[in-house]
Amino acid sequence: MAEHVVIVGGGFAGIKAAEALAHQKEVSVTLIDRQNYHLFQPLLYQVATASLEQESIAYPLRSLVQRFGSNVRFRLAEVTRIDAENKQLITPQANIPFDKLILATGMATNDYGTPGVDAYAYELKDLDDAVDLRSHMLMAFEKAAMLDNPEARSEWLTFVVVGGGATGVEFAGALQELVTHIVSRDYPEFDVQEEVHIVLLEAMDALFTGYDEPNQEFTRKRLEKMGVEVRLNTMVSGVEADRVLIKGDDPIATRCVLWAAGVRVTPLVESFDAPKARQGRIVVTPTLTVPDHPDIYAVGDIAYVEQDGQMLPGMAPVAMQMGRYAGEALLARLRGKEPEPFHYADRGKMAVIGRGAAIADVLGLNVRGVIAWLMWMGLHIYFLIGFQNRLQVMINWAFDYIFFERKVRLILRDTETDEMPAIEDGATPPLEEGEVVAAR
Amino acid sequence: MAEHVVIVGGGFAGIKAAEALAHQKEVSVTLIDRQNYHLFQPLLYQVATASLEQESIAYPLRSLVQRFGSNVRFRLAEVTRIDAENKQLITPQANIPFDKLILATGMATNDYGTPGVDAYAYELKDLDDAVDLRSHMLMAFEKAAMLDNPEARSEWLTFVVVGGGATGVEFAGALQELVTHIVSRDYPEFDVQEEVHIVLLEAMDALFTGYDEPNQEFTRKRLEKMGVEVRLNTMVSGVEADRVLIKGDDPIATRCVLWAAGVRVTPLVESFDAPKARQGRIVVTPTLTVPDHPDIYAVGDIAYVEQDGQMLPGMAPVAMQMGRYAGEALLARLRGKEPEPFHYADRGKMAVIGRGAAIADVLGLNVRGVIAWLMWMGLHIYFLIGFQNRLQVMINWAFDYIFFERKVRLILRDTETDEMPAIEDGATPPLEEGEVVAAR
Repeated sequence: MAEHVVIVGGGFAGIKAAEALAHQKEVSVTLIDRQNYHLFQPLLYQVATASLEQESIAYPLRSLVQRFGSNVRFRLAEVTRIDAENKQLITPQANIPFDKLILATGMATNDYGTPGVDAYAYELKDLDDAVDLRSHMLMAFEKAAMLDNPEARSEWLTFVVVGGGATGVEFAGALQELVTHIVSRDYPEFDVQEEVHIVLLEAMDALFTGYDEPNQEFTRKRLEKMGVEVRLNTMVSGVEADRVLIKGDDPIATRCVLWAAGVRVTPLVESFDAPKARQGRIVVTPTLTVPDHPDIYAVGDIAYVEQDGQMLPGMAPVAMQMGRYAGEALLARLRGKEPEPFHYADRGKMAVIGRGAAIADVLGLNVRGVIAWLMWMGLHIYFLIGFQNRLQVMINWAFDYIFFERKVRLILRDTETDEMPAIEDGATPPLEEGEVVAAR
Repeated sequence: MAEHVVIVGGGFAGIKAAEALAHQKEVSVTLIDRQNYHLFQPLLYQVATASLEQESIAYPLRSLVQRFGSNVRFRLAEVTRIDAENKQLITPQANIPFDKLILATGMATNDYGTPGVDAYAYELKDLDDAVDLRSHMLMAFEKAAMLDNPEARSEWLTFVVVGGGATGVEFAGALQELVTHIVSRDYPEFDVQEEVHIVLLEAMDALFTGYDEPNQEFTRKRLEKMGVEVRLNTMVSGVEADRVLIKGDDPIATRCVLWAAGVRVTPLVESFDAPKARQGRIVVTPTLTVPDHPDIYAVGDIAYVEQDGQMLPGMAPVAMQMGRYAGEALLARLRGKEPEPFHYADRGKMAVIGRGAAIADVLGLNVRGVIAWLMWMGLHIYFLIGFQNRLQVMINWAFDYIFFERKVRLILRDTETDEMPAIEDGATPPLEEGEVVAAR
């Protein structure tokens, strides 16, 4: 009888674990996810900034498991509890028994208890978040276009990004480019260069804390040159419907806040009794199992692993290597062999700031600017799943970077137009007969 | 002072009217729509059946108006009332004055007062509808995959399409192909060929009533050969959460109903005092103006126009010609010329049933099968707006038709997994260790 391996999570770690177990007769594998698709999260900010279709960074998990052979199956479910004692997972529909378990659930947003984040700020964790944020931003421009003085428009045209890590920087850069090249053409109703403000707030004294100082400085200067206002050492103490509160400084009036300041484990991992470290990560053994649970592996961002005295960061390459390792270690043990401890082979890291501007720290070399940007594009295309997705992303980038066109600027969420600001009696309706608004 | 022309609706008729007025100094044009994009509605059913990304059949209206020059502007708004007396449009934000008005609002779904349609049936009018329907259908397959006997699965695997016009036939055909070629690979949990039922109900005695009998017969036989159950002379008397009621026959147990049985004007046109005909259409003058309102044109599906003793049908080519005509007639009058009456240049019509199967009635010739299908594809690519959209649709069709792959099978709506059927205590959980389900 084949061992039943359950993998929870179809992200980078989960699908690599499934791949490692593919076509192996000793195991019958069930891959569980809340969504029916794998999401290429590193490009999520491009969906939010109208560069990419949401469909182009998602891939159906049922397509994926077909490649892995008949011993791998998919199941759409939300696991609500891990019953380690009875070796089963609790879902609203049924209890799913397992012999071996690989936990790869990824992280959720961490608001550090800041009031109002949950109610008023956007996050960038899944496709819905990205499309919600995109729709909200485009709607803010539409709202501003209806108002006839800069003071009234100001809060609709100020966008605040909280957090100077990869998501915050990449989003702020991509949004600034959307504004500079496209919003400026789209809205003759107001002076885009003058009136739109993108503010990036970081609590620490540098952006991209994982990189070295020259890269951090390059990033900050490039963002500022593009037009983003970068404020370091700035703590957000609260988010309200129309402003962001700053510790020891004036609030910023805004109708759009992206919270990208931190992550933490999901309630499922939170409720699982195991030794925990920063942000609720599980402190795993050298072979990535949960202490006292040799049949349960924890991989990806939820695993706390130190290497060379530092925590391995929550990045796709780390997650992929952990996932593959867990699948292989599990198989090795079934075959009576004890696996070597996990070791992350660090091939470097990279991040993008904007068109022609990225930073890379690859094989000990620091690369910045256009070369790093081209490397970044190539690698992201390579790691996307599905030939059709790759083709589509390449086409979109070509149009974006060559023709400065982002055609995905569609407002797709139910847009309550009656929630738009009413124009007060006596105010000039913005589009009166023959009216000419000063364009750029 | 330029005349202020307001166009309500960015569909086929509205954008052609705007195009006709583009770059003309005599007019200042405002194009108003509830959405910020033009939708290529003829391909909406392909978004619902996971062939096309929603973004590939939408085009930002602000991009479009840029091509039309600085005298054409876009405004996102929902018009709630036409105040013809004071020559203004009422929106929740402001009253928008006009000198000339072109109404091109398109049609809404007509449920003919059938109980339950509004609450339980899906419609296919906008992108949200298509993504909702796609998500619901894919979720139905996921739900069926969790149930362990064919009786319990049956209602989740029965799909009912009401209405044998273009939308109903094209959707039923595309859904059957999704099921035959893709769902059958995706779900080893049940016998797709045996258990999935697609039923097309038509109240009259033929499908495609606008075509001649050989085409109607071809359509019915082809659908049946593909696996769709076609029931003519069948009236739906109600829709409930888990079944469709049939007049004089047994109800059909189903969890998914698409209502494509008819259209009617929207409440805006309904509330506008003008002579009306079938489905609330406005009976326009020979120059497409509203009787007694020489400054108001009504074009597209909402205009009732007879030609050669028959009503011009609600099709994209008719709408486009009417829109262009209205723009040109309006300009001619401003220049002191009286336009010739509108005349629809009928170049034919076509519809698709499935892969390699379409019907066309072009220049008096009846074409059926592969040739018609190739013509259909070519024309639809040609009429799509935006080079990028064309490229994307071509790529998707190539993958669909050559590799039988539809990668857009993503469940994008909030999928309440806890609303899924619970598996009763004692029932075998469908994915037990080592279990093998008979695949196709």
